[in-house]
Amino acid sequence: MPVYREDFTVESHRSKEVLLITQEVASILRKSGMQEGICLVYTPHTTAAIAINEAADPDVLDDMILGFNRLSPSLIQYSHKEGNSPAHLLSSLIGPSEAIPIKDGKLDLGLWQGIYFCEFDGPRVRKVAVQVLG
Amino acid sequence: MPVYREDFTVESHRSKEVLLITQEVASILRKSGMQEGICLVYTPHTTAAIAINEAADPDVLDDMILGFNRLSPSLIQYSHKEGNSPAHLLSSLIGPSEAIPIKDGKLDLGLWQGIYFCEFDGPRVRKVAVQVLG
Amino acid sequence: MPVYREDFTVESHRSKEVLLITQEVASILRKSGMQEGICLVYTPHTTAAIAINEAADPDVLDDMILGFNRLSPSLIQYSHKEGNSPAHLLSSLIGPSEAIPIKDGKLDLGLWQGIYFCEFDGPRVRKVAVQVLG
Repeated sequence: MPVYREDFTVESHRSKEVLLITQEVASILRKSGMQEGICLVYTPHTTAAIAINEAADPDVLDDMILGFNRLSPSLIQYSHKEGNSPAHLLSSLIGPSEAIPIKDGKLDLGLWQGIYFCEFDGPRVRKVAVQVLG
Repeated sequence: MPVYREDFTVESHRSKEVLLITQEVASILRKSGMQEGICLVYTPHTTAAIAINEAADPDVLDDMILGFNRLSPSLIQYSHKEGNSPAHLLSSLIGPSEAIPIKDGKLDLGLWQGIYFCEFDGPRVRKVAVQVLG
Repeated sequence: MPVYREDFTVESHRSKEVLLITQEVASILRKSGMQEGICLVYTPHTTAAIAINEAADPDVLDDMILGFNRLSPSLIQYSHKEGNSPAHLLSSLIGPSEAIPIKDGKLDLGLWQGIYFCEFDGPRVRKVAVQVLG
């Protein structure tokens, strides 16, 4: 099975931030030359995640961050001394990867879908791995 | 690597609904003829998701919808004008895809597991893509 | 495409528990001999999940369980007679699988990442399937 792998970095500027990375992933897929298969987008961090959501109205992203804060608030009962337990919880809720079907050499995303890097404990420079199986 | 791809549609009748799609996916896998590999079930929508859960007692599905409503309520602070921000949040919490191992030409689901299309902003006609890598 | 498959069991001792399984998965990957590809870790249960999170400070795991309980509490309105609806909901929130890139014959996890089996309705003996595509 042909496998193509390439990584890139993203830089967040706020403590919680949702960054569109569709173009970066699409560009790596093009370089891979794969026509059919699966594209795995994976982040090796434990206070971040990869999500797929609407890429049209930026208000959706603000509302997602509002929802994230509500789902995983800072709680006085947390034990972890670094204080970023809400970020660890969100990382497992959203998950470190998304698998996207490849069709005719392209990411077969829906019309409104974009791929997002979700920062839960920024600002930081983060890594994203793209593994293409075709 | 052999790749087989086929799509189908599902129709929801309520604003939130959990629809069993195991048979549709199993039927596409049979047509693919693949014996081992991974079956990726992917929905290209941003207010829907794919989940795996119990397919025995329908009460579990009602309870999941109760849980979904509790996790992502309508909040007055949301900015997105369409009013479906709770559906976008749930879409990223549950995720747009599930990857299921294939064994002896069959979906290797657990005894109680079924594959579900989760509608968070219905009623609508929706698309599900099945990508089989074998 | 070469596919290697092997299962193992984990035993939980509490109602909610997060168990590190990185070594079990890495050992199966080594036996597979695959150098590049994807490793799918899948649990066939509907009241459990697979997650990736920090494997350094055990406090993070306690905090995750605190977060899980907060996200999916026992609610009087649940219909399912077994009483484990919170466990079913958490199973779909975290999800039954994780896909991890393989690089140079190894799980390409981040420095702090470990693979976890999440028990939401224990104690029980549970099954984990590892499907390697390389």
